Amino acid sequence: MLSVEEAVSRLCGSARILARTERVKVLNALGRVLAEDIVSGESVPPADNSAMDGYAFNYSEALAENFSLPLSQRIPAGVAPKPLVPGTAARIFTGSEIPPGADTVAMQEVCASDGEQVTIDSNIVRGSNIRPAGQDIRCGDTVVEKGTCMRPQEMGLLSSIGVAEVEVYQPLRIAMFSTGDELVEPGQPLQQGQIYNSNRSTLTGLLQQMGMEILDLGTAPDCPVATRKILKQAAEQGEVIISAGGVSVGEEDHVKNAVEETGGIDFWRIAIKPGKPLAFGSVSGTPFIGLPGNPASVFVTFLVLARPFLLASQGLVDKFLPAFKAISLFERKGEKREVYLRGRMTEAGVAIYPNQSSGVLFSASWGDVLVRQPQGMGIEVGTAVDILPYSQLRL
Amino acid sequence: MLSVEEAVSRLCGSARILARTERVKVLNALGRVLAEDIVSGESVPPADNSAMDGYAFNYSEALAENFSLPLSQRIPAGVAPKPLVPGTAARIFTGSEIPPGADTVAMQEVCASDGEQVTIDSNIVRGSNIRPAGQDIRCGDTVVEKGTCMRPQEMGLLSSIGVAEVEVYQPLRIAMFSTGDELVEPGQPLQQGQIYNSNRSTLTGLLQQMGMEILDLGTAPDCPVATRKILKQAAEQGEVIISAGGVSVGEEDHVKNAVEETGGIDFWRIAIKPGKPLAFGSVSGTPFIGLPGNPASVFVTFLVLARPFLLASQGLVDKFLPAFKAISLFERKGEKREVYLRGRMTEAGVAIYPNQSSGVLFSASWGDVLVRQPQGMGIEVGTAVDILPYSQLRL
Repeated sequence: MLSVEEAVSRLCGSARILARTERVKVLNALGRVLAEDIVSGESVPPADNSAMDGYAFNYSEALAENFSLPLSQRIPAGVAPKPLVPGTAARIFTGSEIPPGADTVAMQEVCASDGEQVTIDSNIVRGSNIRPAGQDIRCGDTVVEKGTCMRPQEMGLLSSIGVAEVEVYQPLRIAMFSTGDELVEPGQPLQQGQIYNSNRSTLTGLLQQMGMEILDLGTAPDCPVATRKILKQAAEQGEVIISAGGVSVGEEDHVKNAVEETGGIDFWRIAIKPGKPLAFGSVSGTPFIGLPGNPASVFVTFLVLARPFLLASQGLVDKFLPAFKAISLFERKGEKREVYLRGRMTEAGVAIYPNQSSGVLFSASWGDVLVRQPQGMGIEVGTAVDILPYSQLRL
Repeated sequence: MLSVEEAVSRLCGSARILARTERVKVLNALGRVLAEDIVSGESVPPADNSAMDGYAFNYSEALAENFSLPLSQRIPAGVAPKPLVPGTAARIFTGSEIPPGADTVAMQEVCASDGEQVTIDSNIVRGSNIRPAGQDIRCGDTVVEKGTCMRPQEMGLLSSIGVAEVEVYQPLRIAMFSTGDELVEPGQPLQQGQIYNSNRSTLTGLLQQMGMEILDLGTAPDCPVATRKILKQAAEQGEVIISAGGVSVGEEDHVKNAVEETGGIDFWRIAIKPGKPLAFGSVSGTPFIGLPGNPASVFVTFLVLARPFLLASQGLVDKFLPAFKAISLFERKGEKREVYLRGRMTEAGVAIYPNQSSGVLFSASWGDVLVRQPQGMGIEVGTAVDILPYSQLRL
């Protein structure tokens, strides 16, 4: 069996950026992946400015005048200051630009003024209350790198340097289908032997929260002709193909043969639970990932195995390594596979849903994290375990 | 000064659900807040089914026949099985319904069959490889509660019980504006004394990632008439009003007086850094939150103070308490206020950006978590600190 780490490494190693690029407004760029480095043409702030409402002056001159100075100008925010008349002070406000000649700002709470003259507390330190030009960003800095997912703070940051539009990758177009004659769509009546199709909705949500475009091809019946037809359409219209179910090697599993006819396919036995079988290959040149069919297996294998491949194909460069730990409230024997337990954070630590069967999707809805149990390792109550919050496993 | 905890408690205590409801397809419900409890009318799975491709039989009968049985039916998934002919076995597949009379499934790998007769490994345990009816959900269970934010797993879960549409809250309509004559929009040339408006983009992204509708009223000039006009429009058209800047009590801060004229306003001095001043009140009955104006203060006070109020107003019931800890890679003296440091997770622990000034938005883009430093408490290298991943601070 392949380790999870090795499987992810192989998947990502074979990924290349499939998405095209387009230009969008920064205000519409949330969740999009940058297709260019953004280098600042501005310093932020562009000039020294005041951190307080108060009075700007030259410290040496103020010292000479015993900290009592006439007022020579008023500088509201947004107004270009005139050079400071020597031996005077300027009324200034938070965010206002420091006038040339001034080097210190006293906050108004430590000053007395009649509107014409100001007396400043002599304990003021030279250089106080000035935010220096370029303290946030200097002209020429690379502010956000290609491959970064735009968050609110990147939207703000790019706006702060005057950038209104950016080049981003278009959302990947994912062709998606389920397999299984037992599947019925919600809203339809259920006959004996049938179950409702949950994988379609789970996968839709997982892809939507990555910002991807979904081409939903529905459910392929368990027959070779229909499977071939749906794969052909998926390869023609999608940039990546994802299916749920039908990838075992049983006589009712038709995806394998159909993919083999039109491309290459590997069946990986991955040391992951829930999960294990994963099909990975291509159909007429379009990458294909075949997930298992059980609801909790779809959820886990998508997040752990398919997601990194999709992110790499979308152009994302994953920068940070989450290493969250939590105290285990449960004990569990080691298994031959790496286990991804569906858990819930509490103040005291992390608990797991009692029934971790691959058929029990409620386990994933019950809580907010995956707990990673390494291959062959038991978990004791009170020890630290690796947790992967669902909220991290998005774009 | 109010503690952060007390401020959040007061804000949320005064919140009531402002959002209306609407009916949407489950496939379009990602990130929406449920406005109804969902009680299952189905058991999942609806009947006992096979966890494997193999053979279904009655254990006692098989024991009597020395585990060699004739095959009497073939049950593909999705087909209603006939009752098992006594003393026989049925060919069965993963997900197929167990025929009445059978109580055990042997996986095909431990069986030998010529297509008419099957010989089963006699080590098989009675009851093996059967997924019992209702193991995931039982008819009558409350599957997802009112006030839950729909994630992919809830979409899957509701589909698994046949629910195609749900009642959700409509996105809150947030009227938003900035204040400050120094602000220029990105794409425009910058004159001396001016800076680009980053708060508008940061707030847009923060509200977008909560799924809210934004009514962007732009920038209010620093004058009483314009401020009154923008507040009137905000109160008429928005369900909540949020502003950035202008909430100090300086002579260039006009929001306070304008809000006082049309409603009630409190100025809270909150023991939070960056941040401290927060205005909270209402304009003609519409709740109003006035955030500070510095870029990093807007980011932090929105996430820590405004977000819980908005979530409560949107109808969300926050169910889980994240309690993530990380090892500090830095040291820091205690402060009089609770400090929210912008940090980055690494394999070794959490680091913070060197410049934590409220004017430095890059600190928030540099990393992926807020580190909470409690009031008056120092942080030592190697100790555990509370972290709030940005990815958790969404909807």
